Amino acid sequence: MEEIEAQIERFIKEVDEHALKLYTKASKGKRLRAKLIIKIAGESESAYKLAAIVELIHAASLLHDDVIDDALTRRGSDSINALYGDKTAIMLGDILYSKGFMELVSYDREIAEAISAAVTNLSVGEMMDVNLSKSINLNQELYFEMIYKKTAVLIEATARSAAHLSGKDSEAFALYGKNLGLAFQIIDDVLDITMSDEQLGKPSLADFKEGKTTLPYIYLFESLNQQDTSTLNSLYKKELTLDEGQWIRAKMQESGAVLKSIELAQKLGYEALEAIEFDKNSDLERVMRDMIEREF
Amino acid sequence: MEEIEAQIERFIKEVDEHALKLYTKASKGKRLRAKLIIKIAGESESAYKLAAIVELIHAASLLHDDVIDDALTRRGSDSINALYGDKTAIMLGDILYSKGFMELVSYDREIAEAISAAVTNLSVGEMMDVNLSKSINLNQELYFEMIYKKTAVLIEATARSAAHLSGKDSEAFALYGKNLGLAFQIIDDVLDITMSDEQLGKPSLADFKEGKTTLPYIYLFESLNQQDTSTLNSLYKKELTLDEGQWIRAKMQESGAVLKSIELAQKLGYEALEAIEFDKNSDLERVMRDMIEREF
Repeated sequence: MEEIEAQIERFIKEVDEHALKLYTKASKGKRLRAKLIIKIAGESESAYKLAAIVELIHAASLLHDDVIDDALTRRGSDSINALYGDKTAIMLGDILYSKGFMELVSYDREIAEAISAAVTNLSVGEMMDVNLSKSINLNQELYFEMIYKKTAVLIEATARSAAHLSGKDSEAFALYGKNLGLAFQIIDDVLDITMSDEQLGKPSLADFKEGKTTLPYIYLFESLNQQDTSTLNSLYKKELTLDEGQWIRAKMQESGAVLKSIELAQKLGYEALEAIEFDKNSDLERVMRDMIEREF
Repeated sequence: MEEIEAQIERFIKEVDEHALKLYTKASKGKRLRAKLIIKIAGESESAYKLAAIVELIHAASLLHDDVIDDALTRRGSDSINALYGDKTAIMLGDILYSKGFMELVSYDREIAEAISAAVTNLSVGEMMDVNLSKSINLNQELYFEMIYKKTAVLIEATARSAAHLSGKDSEAFALYGKNLGLAFQIIDDVLDITMSDEQLGKPSLADFKEGKTTLPYIYLFESLNQQDTSTLNSLYKKELTLDEGQWIRAKMQESGAVLKSIELAQKLGYEALEAIEFDKNSDLERVMRDMIEREF
């Protein structure tokens, strides 16, 4: 990973020293996409560079997301918009996006197309997320389209590109990446409900307050009687009291909405593992199992 | 041009219907870059598409610039950030950028590289502009680097790509595009000083108030005595009275700072015309002459 971190910094430095200084203040994240590339394509100059490109693009999308969502922290640290204002975050995001694209041009058409199409979807996914957060959304199809575009699509394109780079079955790895992204997002949405503030390292039950009707909420609305439905409606986009939070958590468990969400994430995960079973890749298996077979 | 407008709308519609609806509310601009492509490369499907791509990218950069500059109008109409808020403008910009890049991938490496490198410079140019506007800048080199990146670089890459597309001398047309962009920006900076609010269709003498020490101001500072220098310093970033505005205009004329700026723009223009003289392209000649041989 050190190779990749160094490559990311070289890329940014080639563009602008000032941008590099700003970038060093941004949260580095888990580098899930970079790891995926190395675990699929193996170690090579070309894999390191592709990993750095994808992480540049991912970082750019987070910079803009944090402005759009008014998020003042990112993984427990101050976000760039909190530190230096929205404008700096927008400009730095534009620099990282465009440098990522610029470097992408040197790869095969298949890879450049997959990644660049994913970025277009990423932007559309963010817009869908904002629009779906304006009122309660009970449409599962829209929820799945949104999390596919916002979260899964770049992981899918990353896995597809890494497989292409190393001459492996790109459809199989694309499915793995897509389902990893979908399962990750569903579980993230579950943890917002089942975890405490301390366990999350940020306020829990934040999604519903921010207007997001995530999958567990969609399932919950489907199972509630009229009175409970109107109670849940009345809590939408509200700062919750402790009792109201407890009520939502209890209903989520009673109704099976949380369990049903976890089971769907697990189903997607096992489907992905089956698709790449031929590769006997214990690293990729562990990434998925660690995510779907954890404590909820 | 209708072909190109239709292609732009098709591109955006392929991504997202909602984005297209928003886009129709944005100012369409002069389509200078699209015209340049057609005038250099001639009419063809491939030229129309490239023109649409470059205009998508240019539109994206204006959407983000207007957020960063808090600009509430664009060519006399409400900007997208004024109409729908900063966040929508950021998201729409990201969609147009990424769709532009995505379509660029189908062109020759030379073209994809030229345009994508230009976009990276565009973002750096905007950041330089913001940083140079924090205090008085008397460094000509930084001013020229900033206007090159912010304004000239995409026009240069556009002209270079159009020449490449049609098998013409790409270096010659790149120089034409670069000098067109530089001359355009210098003249734009001159008009901010010499024109009235009515002639400009927006408040004049706005640059200095916004912290921009454009070329005429750099020349003016170089020629003023100590007392006038301190007067000019005291007017920096200030809302000017009528008298103060008159004083700046008078000093700009007396000192020759305006004339010297115009002469530089003209020199760049004639150099560009010489570079493409072999092409006997009266359209491109007229574009340049209309700009540098006008009333100031």
